[in-house]
Amino acid sequence: MQILEDLRKVFNDFLESKKFTQSPSQLYEPNNYFLSIGGKRMRPVLVLLGNHLYNKKYPDVLPAALAIEYFHNFSLIHDDMMDQAPLRRGHTTVHEKYGPNTAILSGDALLVYAYKSIADIPERFLKDVLDIFTNTAVEVCEGQQYDMNFETQSAVSESEYIEMIRLKTSVVLAAGLKIGALIGGADQQDTDSLYHYAINLGIAFQIQDDILDCYGDVGLVGKQPGGDIIQNKKTILLIRALAKAKSEKDSSLEQILCKSYPDKKEKVIQVLALYEKYQIRESVENLKEDYIQKALSYLENTSLHADKKEILLQLVEYLVRRKY
Amino acid sequence: MQILEDLRKVFNDFLESKKFTQSPSQLYEPNNYFLSIGGKRMRPVLVLLGNHLYNKKYPDVLPAALAIEYFHNFSLIHDDMMDQAPLRRGHTTVHEKYGPNTAILSGDALLVYAYKSIADIPERFLKDVLDIFTNTAVEVCEGQQYDMNFETQSAVSESEYIEMIRLKTSVVLAAGLKIGALIGGADQQDTDSLYHYAINLGIAFQIQDDILDCYGDVGLVGKQPGGDIIQNKKTILLIRALAKAKSEKDSSLEQILCKSYPDKKEKVIQVLALYEKYQIRESVENLKEDYIQKALSYLENTSLHADKKEILLQLVEYLVRRKY
Repeated sequence: MQILEDLRKVFNDFLESKKFTQSPSQLYEPNNYFLSIGGKRMRPVLVLLGNHLYNKKYPDVLPAALAIEYFHNFSLIHDDMMDQAPLRRGHTTVHEKYGPNTAILSGDALLVYAYKSIADIPERFLKDVLDIFTNTAVEVCEGQQYDMNFETQSAVSESEYIEMIRLKTSVVLAAGLKIGALIGGADQQDTDSLYHYAINLGIAFQIQDDILDCYGDVGLVGKQPGGDIIQNKKTILLIRALAKAKSEKDSSLEQILCKSYPDKKEKVIQVLALYEKYQIRESVENLKEDYIQKALSYLENTSLHADKKEILLQLVEYLVRRKY
Repeated sequence: MQILEDLRKVFNDFLESKKFTQSPSQLYEPNNYFLSIGGKRMRPVLVLLGNHLYNKKYPDVLPAALAIEYFHNFSLIHDDMMDQAPLRRGHTTVHEKYGPNTAILSGDALLVYAYKSIADIPERFLKDVLDIFTNTAVEVCEGQQYDMNFETQSAVSESEYIEMIRLKTSVVLAAGLKIGALIGGADQQDTDSLYHYAINLGIAFQIQDDILDCYGDVGLVGKQPGGDIIQNKKTILLIRALAKAKSEKDSSLEQILCKSYPDKKEKVIQVLALYEKYQIRESVENLKEDYIQKALSYLENTSLHADKKEILLQLVEYLVRRKY
């Protein structure tokens, strides 16, 4: 989408101008490194897009976009450390490259700088934006805790899972779009509707992510399918399959999950066969479509003109009907 | 000091009313635990005291005091984890009790809640308080990084050390007093003077802490003296002694620091003998007194009435002329 490309360029130029040059370098350099390894900048771009929908240009909103991107990267640095992940976006994670103490402290500093950037937006918006931003940050911490709980929790219900991905993924996207629109001059009906549009879009996006891990095009996704299956990760597909197996009194899926496989591909094949048997893909595609429809109905509630609605329609196609 | 006792009671009642009851409990319970093991609440009490100096009662300022206490505890939880400290205030640290991932994530949540509490102060003060608070938080991260750097840095100069303790200890005390006074209606001359009063008082306080580790009354301090010496911790006493030894071309102190002692008390005795030889205690007491005098001169710059100045004079006595 051209508009996303354009906004990404605007944001990346701003981010580049805000590179950390302070002392001590041991504190700031890891953040420059992590911010430089990129990602799609979807969250700050949504802040700018929220502003663009109301025909505003960006000076007022860029600090808010920067705050959202700093926050997102802070949470990734700490999450990677908690997950002991060696790689992020194909690059070494901060705790691997600089050590665990740096990951903690540089991450902390990045969160504080997110608030420092919030303080740079025009004062008339400060209280509202601070409230949205802080409530979102709380929710992300809660989402990460639920996600950690799920690792040791024997059964995870579908509603628990959806709530977790709402907290961990959707709220930052939704807060970004809402803050951008708010600073653009949107009224409360619009900011609320856009928020819920993005919440539902974000949930559809995460469901799509779960689907692609099983059924994505290897060439486009860039990795072998089934990573989640190998790790017994509680995705929406596995949660639905376990529920279905339980209702059918079929213990074969539980057995596969407990078994150790010398050849991991064999495990993937067996789980996918059960997904096929229970028509999990179709059922989860329908669930995704439900969230897309919810998103679109919130979009209808806004006062946006047709050309602006069209952008948000395209965004849905772009984000959740992708094949990669 | 009676006024400090009174304000501590006001704050503790407020803190108790704000206990975390949200879900998931795995995220919030560790913060309730850590906040409950106490400490002297000096930082939030200074926020209330700043307000009291301008004859204000506390409804407007309590959220700011809570933010400062949350921030202080967040930084302790993460510092304890980075230092691998098993105990804090005689109780098990968060990472020891709940695991490292909880220490990271619950700490993060506590920092976010500090900002949530900042957002609760009256809106006319929000921008100023947010700026003071955030700049202080940045400085504390920088101070912690310098402190970590010192562990592997061969030589630490006296000015580097003073800067580190300013960042790590003084700025939160000073920000607290300043924010309290600001919300109390103090003008800029007064808030700035009170800030610098507390910065210098905080430095004197940390120097006092270094002195007490060597020369404190065991019965009052509650631990054997010399802990810093045993760990080769770069205190102001060691930094001055090393400088003196260098100028005298005396390598005996360096040798003691490199040597391994089966009996740690023997090391303490030998280092204290060198401190005696070089009159380190007197020299450092003089340094502390210099900072006290600086603090008092800033106090003179305020427009406070004599009875209020008297409180801040007593605070100096209470904090930095203590023997325990």
